[in-house]
Amino acid sequence: MSAFSCPLPADPADTVQLGHGSGGLLMHRLLEETILPALDNRLLRQGHDSAVLDGTTGKRLAFTTDSYVVRPRFFPGGDIGTLAVNGTVNDLAMAGARPRWMSVGLILEEGLPMDELRRTLASMKAAADAAGVALVTGDTKVVDHGHGDGIFINTSGIGVIEHDLAIGAGAIRPGDVILLSGDLGRHGICILAEREGLAFETTIESDTAALHTPVLALLDAGVPVHCLRDLTRGGLASALVELMLASGHSTEIRERDIPVEPQVRGACELLGLDPLYVANEGRMIAIVPEDAAANALEILASFPETADARAIGTIKEGVSGQVVLASTVGTRRIVDMLPGDQLPRIC
Amino acid sequence: MSAFSCPLPADPADTVQLGHGSGGLLMHRLLEETILPALDNRLLRQGHDSAVLDGTTGKRLAFTTDSYVVRPRFFPGGDIGTLAVNGTVNDLAMAGARPRWMSVGLILEEGLPMDELRRTLASMKAAADAAGVALVTGDTKVVDHGHGDGIFINTSGIGVIEHDLAIGAGAIRPGDVILLSGDLGRHGICILAEREGLAFETTIESDTAALHTPVLALLDAGVPVHCLRDLTRGGLASALVELMLASGHSTEIRERDIPVEPQVRGACELLGLDPLYVANEGRMIAIVPEDAAANALEILASFPETADARAIGTIKEGVSGQVVLASTVGTRRIVDMLPGDQLPRIC
Repeated sequence: MSAFSCPLPADPADTVQLGHGSGGLLMHRLLEETILPALDNRLLRQGHDSAVLDGTTGKRLAFTTDSYVVRPRFFPGGDIGTLAVNGTVNDLAMAGARPRWMSVGLILEEGLPMDELRRTLASMKAAADAAGVALVTGDTKVVDHGHGDGIFINTSGIGVIEHDLAIGAGAIRPGDVILLSGDLGRHGICILAEREGLAFETTIESDTAALHTPVLALLDAGVPVHCLRDLTRGGLASALVELMLASGHSTEIRERDIPVEPQVRGACELLGLDPLYVANEGRMIAIVPEDAAANALEILASFPETADARAIGTIKEGVSGQVVLASTVGTRRIVDMLPGDQLPRIC
Repeated sequence: MSAFSCPLPADPADTVQLGHGSGGLLMHRLLEETILPALDNRLLRQGHDSAVLDGTTGKRLAFTTDSYVVRPRFFPGGDIGTLAVNGTVNDLAMAGARPRWMSVGLILEEGLPMDELRRTLASMKAAADAAGVALVTGDTKVVDHGHGDGIFINTSGIGVIEHDLAIGAGAIRPGDVILLSGDLGRHGICILAEREGLAFETTIESDTAALHTPVLALLDAGVPVHCLRDLTRGGLASALVELMLASGHSTEIRERDIPVEPQVRGACELLGLDPLYVANEGRMIAIVPEDAAANALEILASFPETADARAIGTIKEGVSGQVVLASTVGTRRIVDMLPGDQLPRIC
């Protein structure tokens, strides 16, 4: 079985059929027998077109959306369901919001084995429970075989902003310190290794993780966080270039302070990839004032998902959008945005 | 050109490429040159992973999600973009909420002509502006040719609930009157006619419409609305069976009071379809107490999108989930949920 295609298994009764998307009895059964039991919670059970949310108490809200089309759908360290929850949790966390509610939009391909749907939903439920997020509203569509790819998932999330900071590129100031939460490149290399059938001494696992707990700890401790960004598609390099363009500043980062696991580094060399551009699903940068950096690092170090956090560079005045890398061998080079299509369908 | 497939046009520069989804320079350009200008608004321009929403003032919120996979993507009366905005506006309206914010998740197929993307985005923007909804956050993924179908769109919406009613199946009471907002079946028959190349004397246009204005007018006038439901996949019949199952009541509806345009009726007879099951995208039922029905009908009649509203039946005690149709020829039959896959990919 190729990881890329959705095989048509022998028993159609155990697969998703077009009728499962038509709003009738088959769909009712799919919801009652498979989807609702897997994701069960009070709001979803209300069975309305909309979930009714209470308890926002007038605070600012963060609202985000992401679709997930990763292939293969199952990989070491996670699957498309884990990713769909953690990725949206992280987008909320990057606004300094406490993730609260999430929607689930499924686009299923006719012929998808029901068991794969069940495994994916179970992963979503486990990741949502771990993050304290309620899956409150959903939608299921079915597309004909050959016009989709197994499962595509959209999750949209709402979080409550309990701080008064204006976290974002606009708050970045020269002198600020860039904190990187851990090693780079594991998610991207894990996916690529699965696709290409590459074997390493030990399996490289995706870094997929929810980052809201350490972020909220920074805010609770009063760290005046200027900007947060998770390092997904395009990796650290693209994120930094985007933030420097948006803020009008520049930065210099130190290669020797950017952790990359030896196996990931080896795979990157083998494949001609630069770990600075490889996607991560559980890594972020936090940009904080210089005098808050030591305290912030201490807080991050106390959580397993950011235990290896370190300062990797500082914000400077100068050419807007410029990111310079000081390499381990003493050279300095300009880091650009990823030009093309290094790794399609990584998330 | 078939409406079903996504052709690979001659000039790849004018189509969506895999690199447009990879988080680098190509994606940055797609966003800056095509997507953001088409959907432009202040919150989207913030360029964060999350939109920050202000002004919820502690009221209850409605939250909903829907993915749109309709084919063909362009049809008389609308397109997938119109549908994606109106459909989610309507899900919020069915909670009696004022639609405020919407997310846009695009899954594009490699090879999609850029012009189709531009037309779709323009439709979304026009529909959002008409409904007073801000498109505040988005995401774009690209899947390889043959693993998607042109454009899939997810929209998630947030609305503010300004009333104190508990609108839903749980509020339905025996004696309540069912109001239907207009004629049935135009969206489904329009899509089917496009797919099958059926020609009618005049073109049947989709009924796609946003229904929040008449709904909010009912609530503003103090109509104690018990339940609202839009009649999408599965049509009026499936919606009523679901609501009767959820409320534990039964109902009898009168065929003679259910408007169906002659051309739609003719097409249904030709195709062996029952208009009660055909999908609509701008129709709803409102279930209200008997003594509020006349006032509610008068209010609905004053809006073009619900001008043809009428009472079609009443809620009864008795077998939970039972829906009986009193036909024009004097017979009575039980209406079941749509058993299978009458019309796949209708929305």
